[in-house]
Amino acid sequence: MTSWQRYLQQHQAQFIEQMSEFLRIPSISAQPEHLPDVWQCARWLVQRLESAGICQPAILQAGEYPLVYGEWLEAGEDAPTILIYGHFDVQPVEPLSEWHHPPFEPWIEDDKIYARGASDDKGNMLVPIVVLEALLRTEGRLPVNVKLLFEGQEEILSPDLPAFIAAHKTRLACDLVVSADGWQWSESEADLRTGLRGLCALEVTVSGPRQDVHAGTHGGALANPIHGLAQLLSGLHDEQGRVCVPGFYQQVKALTQAEREQLNAIPFDEAQWLARVGVTEPFGEQGYTTRERIGIRPTLEVNGISGGYQGHGVKTIIPARATAKITCRLVPDQHPQAIAQAVADHLHTRVPPGVTLQVKVLPNGAHPYYMASDHPGNQAAAHVLEEIYGRAPYYTRSGGSIALLTLFQQQLGVCTVIFGFGLPDENFHAPNEFFRLAQFARGQRAWGALLLRLAATRL
Amino acid sequence: MTSWQRYLQQHQAQFIEQMSEFLRIPSISAQPEHLPDVWQCARWLVQRLESAGICQPAILQAGEYPLVYGEWLEAGEDAPTILIYGHFDVQPVEPLSEWHHPPFEPWIEDDKIYARGASDDKGNMLVPIVVLEALLRTEGRLPVNVKLLFEGQEEILSPDLPAFIAAHKTRLACDLVVSADGWQWSESEADLRTGLRGLCALEVTVSGPRQDVHAGTHGGALANPIHGLAQLLSGLHDEQGRVCVPGFYQQVKALTQAEREQLNAIPFDEAQWLARVGVTEPFGEQGYTTRERIGIRPTLEVNGISGGYQGHGVKTIIPARATAKITCRLVPDQHPQAIAQAVADHLHTRVPPGVTLQVKVLPNGAHPYYMASDHPGNQAAAHVLEEIYGRAPYYTRSGGSIALLTLFQQQLGVCTVIFGFGLPDENFHAPNEFFRLAQFARGQRAWGALLLRLAATRL
Repeated sequence: MTSWQRYLQQHQAQFIEQMSEFLRIPSISAQPEHLPDVWQCARWLVQRLESAGICQPAILQAGEYPLVYGEWLEAGEDAPTILIYGHFDVQPVEPLSEWHHPPFEPWIEDDKIYARGASDDKGNMLVPIVVLEALLRTEGRLPVNVKLLFEGQEEILSPDLPAFIAAHKTRLACDLVVSADGWQWSESEADLRTGLRGLCALEVTVSGPRQDVHAGTHGGALANPIHGLAQLLSGLHDEQGRVCVPGFYQQVKALTQAEREQLNAIPFDEAQWLARVGVTEPFGEQGYTTRERIGIRPTLEVNGISGGYQGHGVKTIIPARATAKITCRLVPDQHPQAIAQAVADHLHTRVPPGVTLQVKVLPNGAHPYYMASDHPGNQAAAHVLEEIYGRAPYYTRSGGSIALLTLFQQQLGVCTVIFGFGLPDENFHAPNEFFRLAQFARGQRAWGALLLRLAATRL
Repeated sequence: MTSWQRYLQQHQAQFIEQMSEFLRIPSISAQPEHLPDVWQCARWLVQRLESAGICQPAILQAGEYPLVYGEWLEAGEDAPTILIYGHFDVQPVEPLSEWHHPPFEPWIEDDKIYARGASDDKGNMLVPIVVLEALLRTEGRLPVNVKLLFEGQEEILSPDLPAFIAAHKTRLACDLVVSADGWQWSESEADLRTGLRGLCALEVTVSGPRQDVHAGTHGGALANPIHGLAQLLSGLHDEQGRVCVPGFYQQVKALTQAEREQLNAIPFDEAQWLARVGVTEPFGEQGYTTRERIGIRPTLEVNGISGGYQGHGVKTIIPARATAKITCRLVPDQHPQAIAQAVADHLHTRVPPGVTLQVKVLPNGAHPYYMASDHPGNQAAAHVLEEIYGRAPYYTRSGGSIALLTLFQQQLGVCTVIFGFGLPDENFHAPNEFFRLAQFARGQRAWGALLLRLAATRL
């Protein structure tokens, strides 16, 4: 065992204590009342980077949100420069009643740490930080030049990052990005994601009367906004699970039969996958497998709906309005703004009589991301994962989205190796999120090995 | 001016002060946390009846809710016995942000008193109470025997009243009910309602995954409960605004052409009615006028919907479930439980793949109500209204529901004259509910005259 590995092993308890501290800060980027917590998280992170030995870490700002930047550039001109990416904001926690413990009071059970953000992404992003500390403390140097960029708006699609990256191209210039946001296939199988879906988001509001009116004295003679919204939403998919928006599939790049076969060859226990979420049958676009529906096909999902009375008992009203939140997951070469606009246009042609429609397209969104499996960055990562897992990783496509990766590609001209160590059952975005402590430790060994390997890789 | 009229005139300021006190109690029957306030309201009312000279008023209980009963039976055996009905519970106040003042801090502006319950029904039910006080203080007696029954669960469809009325038939025995819950046509036109629609209520829940799941890692491969709910709801009406539930219209008693003509002859300014609610066009069942759609046709309205993320910004989940609250307004001879069951059955035959459906039919409901316009009670009321308004009242059918009226008819064998003095624009069940103080005073003159006239009416 090398000295940096020993250092990591000896400090696990402290690292877990630090992760708990980090998880206690409710840095929910979607909710304005938590903006101060997102900043608090950034301040905590600056201190943590300082104590790890990173040079003068600092808070930068993008829009109203903080980013944390740090660097260590003394590996020499011949060594590659690696930008390490992660995010310290987290998803909202509703429905709170389904959490077994309060989401910002981390608790450990069965070698798992539970809290909002444990897996996505605070626990995962702490991994490279403690590895840098171990290398610096034991060897006095890093094998590569390192820049660190941690953002606080990933969960809201990084609306201010395009302008930020464009304004900081020189500072962020690097040979490769390695993302600490990401997951592995299972406890015994690793994977490298060559693709991520993109994303666009819309908010749809159907309005009727100026304010809620009595359903007795007006019911039957006025259009009900909830009925109108239900009608609009039910017209977004056909019975075969296909999205009915004209042009939605037009830019989708078809995969070759070989690519589809490769994807479907990865072992996937659908029955187990269904059992884990408590569903008896899969449902999706006809003609595609579950893996394909998630990995290579675009989707349109309503993530939330509300209108009228939602409290206990009965309130006999026709509501003034009803609202739905929609996101689409996108695949190459769909453009987020073009797809959002196509959905909005389609809805506008179908407004039922007696109500009005307002569609708000959320700015930005995420482009779909693709990185070749034979890219030297992926090859180095594959080598390390094979060492650690004892078998070669799968090359997969993920259904999730990380807006920034396409930005790095477009603005900095570099690809991103997705090198996170969460596992797919860890309830990210859902109640009772957790992170396996064994993966936390394994991730550290992998990150150390990856940095050493990249030092000898021509990128 | 008689002495009781003078007494009323001299005490208006005190009555309004008392109404404000009454309105300050947030007696929302639908919300369990407000149950103590419903009881507080009952205690306030007992004191108010005592000070009006009613004999030993008392709180009775039905289910978890209080009722207030009082009586004055010294008018002699030859005088008729009139049961005065009203309710002191109120509707929920959401959305709170649309109230110009807090809903339980009454404020007076332009001779109108604003607060939840001002018109429906606290202001209205205070009218007969102050009239009884005026008669007792100035004449020492009432012209008729009076029983008073005020309930605290009208807004939740009086679930415990069927059993209560059945158990108290002797105590409640009377010759006629006069309801202080009701409205007049306009400031210059009175009306007597010969019909009220009935009501039944359902709660529909569509479930998918055990808990919310990430829309990236699962989206496209699992049925989304919001999509399923939207599909089910959009299948409840056809494009002509008719309810698609098999059997829904089967028991509807068709009106004669003469009855329809009478209803449509009542002056009704549709443009003004639409402008008041802020809608540009009416919408409803084809082949019927707005008056008919509200008065004589049954409806199915979704009063509330919720599912998934409803907070600020984006949360990319497939929710575990989505729920809708539905009520139907019923006309003779539809049966509330039969119609609710027909809706539930229809939904169960249409469940989309991949989700499950749970339908909760709320117990009881309200039967539609009908009372002949030539009933002596209606005739007495018509005479009084003609005196007060200077013109004969219209005979109308209301779109609203009062569950108890059919119970009085079935259990006590008596009809109910609907004799309230609110007006249709007073935002009952909506934000900024108000009651006109001029109608409060006019209602008092009318109630005094009605009690005197009923003393000489053969019921």
